[in-house]
Amino acid sequence: MRKRIAIDMDETVCDSLGRHIEWYNKQFSTQLTKEDTAGTRIYHVVPEEHMAAVKSYPHHPDFFRDLMVFDDAIESIKTLSEQYDIFFVTAAMEYPTSFQAKYEWLKKHFPFIHELNYVFCGDKSIINADYLIDDTPKHLATFDGKGLLFHAFHNMYATDFQRVYSWKEVLETLRLD
Amino acid sequence: MRKRIAIDMDETVCDSLGRHIEWYNKQFSTQLTKEDTAGTRIYHVVPEEHMAAVKSYPHHPDFFRDLMVFDDAIESIKTLSEQYDIFFVTAAMEYPTSFQAKYEWLKKHFPFIHELNYVFCGDKSIINADYLIDDTPKHLATFDGKGLLFHAFHNMYATDFQRVYSWKEVLETLRLD
Repeated sequence: MRKRIAIDMDETVCDSLGRHIEWYNKQFSTQLTKEDTAGTRIYHVVPEEHMAAVKSYPHHPDFFRDLMVFDDAIESIKTLSEQYDIFFVTAAMEYPTSFQAKYEWLKKHFPFIHELNYVFCGDKSIINADYLIDDTPKHLATFDGKGLLFHAFHNMYATDFQRVYSWKEVLETLRLD
Repeated sequence: MRKRIAIDMDETVCDSLGRHIEWYNKQFSTQLTKEDTAGTRIYHVVPEEHMAAVKSYPHHPDFFRDLMVFDDAIESIKTLSEQYDIFFVTAAMEYPTSFQAKYEWLKKHFPFIHELNYVFCGDKSIINADYLIDDTPKHLATFDGKGLLFHAFHNMYATDFQRVYSWKEVLETLRLD
């Protein structure tokens, strides 16, 4: 039986932090960068009076539209899909207004992965797969299989998981010779 | 660790067949009943010229709104939730226009189950749980844990799974003394 890889969306294949910073800088005329969020989340590096606005962005139905796809993600996942069953697994239940945009984003960028292999969930401990590639340590912590921590500014100090820095590295790590 | 029960939605906790028949009879002034679908699906018991219409209903954003909840489902699941972690697992990816209605239906009828325990998927072999309660044999067939087939007209001739006829019976079967 083919092994299964579960792949997160935000900050694993798509640049949701980039969108967050783009909308924040636009609203408040600031110059926040990704580097400013090192070791934490954007909510914690903005002034307290901006926090409510920043927390509201992902609840906007367009927040997850047209996100940039990370370098080499499409090609690497396409290659991996020849050897593994690929599932996209996203904690969309945190942002129920995101369902449609997330679905359409996956259809657009990964047409070679069937939509029956999309999973919109919350608690990822419900996922039965051999590998989980995710930027969020809490999801890897409750996962039964092998987790790969996709490098992101917010997780840069996490040490409990095997870290991968790029989709080329994911491909090298999981490709079967 | 608490065991986990994954519970399907359509025809397991909510009467989607009832809605299907209601819309069909309304559009074509017919008298179709649930009994007429015994051993098969509604698509196969209507005249061929009606099939496209009948197949289109679940793609309407309102199809899954206000579905009737099955007898004793709320009380039984509430009782089970004291002893198990409950996840709702629905093959919503077959009908992507259904996401919002399904989410709101669960919030309304099962406010005691956290939304992070909702799973919208397609292929349910991705589910990691101890039990799956589902009316669709194909989902039980690929499930790793113990499956319970929730009785429905379409599955009445299936023999490969332990059948449960009501939510009272589910409760008796899974309740820990």
